[in-house]
Amino acid sequence: MGERGLIEHIRRRLPPPPPSLVVGIGDDAAVAVAERGALQVLTTDALVEGVHFDRRFSTPADIGYKALAVNVSDIAAMGAEPRLALLSLILPPALPLADIDRLLDGLLDVAARTGVTLAGGNVTRSPGPLVVDMTVVGSVRPRRILPRRGGRPGDSLYVSGTIGAAAAGLGWLTEHGTLGSELPEDPEMADCVARHRRPEPRARLGALLGRTRTASACMDLSDGLADAVRQIAESSGVGARVAAEALPIHRGAAGWFGQRGVDAVLASLSGGDDYELLFALPNRARGRLRLVERQARGVQLTRIGELTKDKGLVVERDGAGEPLPPGFVHF
Amino acid sequence: MGERGLIEHIRRRLPPPPPSLVVGIGDDAAVAVAERGALQVLTTDALVEGVHFDRRFSTPADIGYKALAVNVSDIAAMGAEPRLALLSLILPPALPLADIDRLLDGLLDVAARTGVTLAGGNVTRSPGPLVVDMTVVGSVRPRRILPRRGGRPGDSLYVSGTIGAAAAGLGWLTEHGTLGSELPEDPEMADCVARHRRPEPRARLGALLGRTRTASACMDLSDGLADAVRQIAESSGVGARVAAEALPIHRGAAGWFGQRGVDAVLASLSGGDDYELLFALPNRARGRLRLVERQARGVQLTRIGELTKDKGLVVERDGAGEPLPPGFVHF
Repeated sequence: MGERGLIEHIRRRLPPPPPSLVVGIGDDAAVAVAERGALQVLTTDALVEGVHFDRRFSTPADIGYKALAVNVSDIAAMGAEPRLALLSLILPPALPLADIDRLLDGLLDVAARTGVTLAGGNVTRSPGPLVVDMTVVGSVRPRRILPRRGGRPGDSLYVSGTIGAAAAGLGWLTEHGTLGSELPEDPEMADCVARHRRPEPRARLGALLGRTRTASACMDLSDGLADAVRQIAESSGVGARVAAEALPIHRGAAGWFGQRGVDAVLASLSGGDDYELLFALPNRARGRLRLVERQARGVQLTRIGELTKDKGLVVERDGAGEPLPPGFVHF
Repeated sequence: MGERGLIEHIRRRLPPPPPSLVVGIGDDAAVAVAERGALQVLTTDALVEGVHFDRRFSTPADIGYKALAVNVSDIAAMGAEPRLALLSLILPPALPLADIDRLLDGLLDVAARTGVTLAGGNVTRSPGPLVVDMTVVGSVRPRRILPRRGGRPGDSLYVSGTIGAAAAGLGWLTEHGTLGSELPEDPEMADCVARHRRPEPRARLGALLGRTRTASACMDLSDGLADAVRQIAESSGVGARVAAEALPIHRGAAGWFGQRGVDAVLASLSGGDDYELLFALPNRARGRLRLVERQARGVQLTRIGELTKDKGLVVERDGAGEPLPPGFVHF
């Protein structure tokens, strides 16, 4: 099947587009009606085989899922709502059509759950590894954006969900797992593997934090919590203090790191791929946060520390301070 | 230099962003003010080493130039104006920073000339070939779009510039050239090589054709003129008749193909990478076309045939008809 045939095959698999999509797949470019009065939010992120995923550990459906999820996560971290996606598929020789179909399954699953329309893209062959490169365009009202730089001394730092699960899940896969092998018996550990394969982008939470003007700054944890704390603090020109005891370390991750004699606090702070949101909360917005919590459909929000006037980046544990560890390095 | 360092290096090289860019490179996503009342136009296209370019034939600056030019060409083919670009750079091991800088030189050259702001992107390493994947977002007024499907029987077919040059240029490079070697002595042939390396996207012409509602359908020649004629005709549910004698075959290409005993008409119809525009012109819009021609800064426009009620796709030569050849297949 050639490029055109494959594009037509993909087009046929899509759900009916919304009326706002004026021109969809199959023309030189897609054309869409923009939300009136909203700002455009644009992000792009690529998953490269051998760097961001391993086909022994993730199914094609997992890869498609994650390719869109990580981009939706970036849109959420700006307080925006994702609208349209473009898929750039760079295919190694002899990737079966069935694998492309499963990749689309995973991608369309995330699209349906986050209200994203696959509006266009590009397909090309390559002598190299599989690359799934996606662009997502979202929208946000002016003054509802959540940039990294908005934090102020005294703002509380909150993180959604739990941390460390994706890193522990990848660790388990590297030690035991290939596709088709049994998942861990421990359900907490099985959840870690699932979180590595299919992170849940916090689309609803991010949009709520923006819309209600609850957070002063926000970022996703693609490169780990320590990195996100550092980025928000540095962009905002402040420091940060994180309480080790408060960190919502995933139970499976705590067990996994503990059994290996690894410091679970440091490993969970440094581990990447969690795709939770870190945000700064001004004291005046505490009431709004309770409102957001009620509407965020059970996503746990944990206060882990605060931004400080002093520019140091400190983890407090057992009454002593230690430096914030470095973030996760993909590169 | 890691991912963050490289992104910061790229950011420092950019010209000051326009006020419409609210958040640029360095946050989770870029944020921009959209043009009021305009539709969003979105396209993505990747250049893959070994498929779309050969580093023996094109400099890093040529590759950066072409990566943006081919996307701007897609926006132009919709009658829209390009506004923002995202760059996804997938880097093989040990690509020198100087090469990335030259790639940016070429890219920023096109950006400056076509009014595009590099608003964000992503950088990742890869075990495979260099991939430069770009997304361009443009805008167009409602009812000014030029889709492929708008052609009607009796509309004239026009093509901009000349055809065949890029294919002949690539042919010359494959026979003689590596970087650093002399360019062809014949200036026409040297122009063919230049057109392969640095195609001129018809940004101004496309936007004019849309804004003035001159064309009923439009497409760029990324996969060759024959392919573009076929796509416009099939999408519009009509046929097409092309006059071989009318084709604006580049003089260098005509000579190159002629010397090799290759039919220059067929080779120029089938050859890809010209990035000219093919458009359909309703008879009532002839007056407007003269206006467009005056404003298009010397871009030659040639009537090459017409759309027909009969669904055949015919090249007329010496009083006889032959079938339209297939398009250029990258895939």
